[in-house]
Amino acid sequence: MTVPPGTRPTRPTASSGAALDDEVVAAEVAAVFARYERALREADVATLTELFWDDARCVRYGVADRQQGAAEIAAWRAEHPGVPPGRRLSGTVVLPIGPDAAVVSTLFTYPGSGAEGRQTQTWARTRAGWRIVAAHVSEIPGH
Amino acid sequence: MTVPPGTRPTRPTASSGAALDDEVVAAEVAAVFARYERALREADVATLTELFWDDARCVRYGVADRQQGAAEIAAWRAEHPGVPPGRRLSGTVVLPIGPDAAVVSTLFTYPGSGAEGRQTQTWARTRAGWRIVAAHVSEIPGH
Repeated sequence: MTVPPGTRPTRPTASSGAALDDEVVAAEVAAVFARYERALREADVATLTELFWDDARCVRYGVADRQQGAAEIAAWRAEHPGVPPGRRLSGTVVLPIGPDAAVVSTLFTYPGSGAEGRQTQTWARTRAGWRIVAAHVSEIPGH
Repeated sequence: MTVPPGTRPTRPTASSGAALDDEVVAAEVAAVFARYERALREADVATLTELFWDDARCVRYGVADRQQGAAEIAAWRAEHPGVPPGRRLSGTVVLPIGPDAAVVSTLFTYPGSGAEGRQTQTWARTRAGWRIVAAHVSEIPGH
């Protein structure tokens, strides 16, 4: 970037933008996403709770519910530990956003249900590792 | 971090984690989110289309529809340019994730509707400016 003489960036850490194609970050997030998905199928509440950011700002919008903050998410999870058998994912997109963020979008279905599920998870690299900082799950009726 | 002798980081740019409380980033994203929300109310298709990332990896899950890639999103938007009058937001959380990413979660309602709307947008700073790289909108029936 060429900076005209006498000017300076207004923000010391100003960036020209996030890398949106970092394969190392994509692989890391794909791995932790797979770990989360496995925990969901195994009703592994400890892992599911671990992988949500332990903070009051963490938001989860569920199919028919919502939680604000890690405490509400953990309490909800204890009541709803897993998913029905046969869950299938499709159209999964893992998008890295710089070195420390990513978003994973995926569709999901269950056998015998015509509903189309959609799940979006925004992940952040924290000191404790990759964590979901915002999640949104919804279903629309089958066609 | 203590690194045992003879080992080295597997990733040169390894990070100790994203800052999740950067007020400058939060203010930038709050401003562009407000610009998007205004465009939604004014059915300003040009601005709405501009603020979605112009890339095939961009994903939008709508209340009763979904689009994969900027071309599909632009085509859908031209058919659905705005929102009904009186839209109200609540519970809006703008979460910065490092210098170049953020996620905005918000609830929305419309007058006369008992439905609870939820909207999640993951934003990335690109060379062109802040852009939505993944979006998810859903509604659940009122109680």
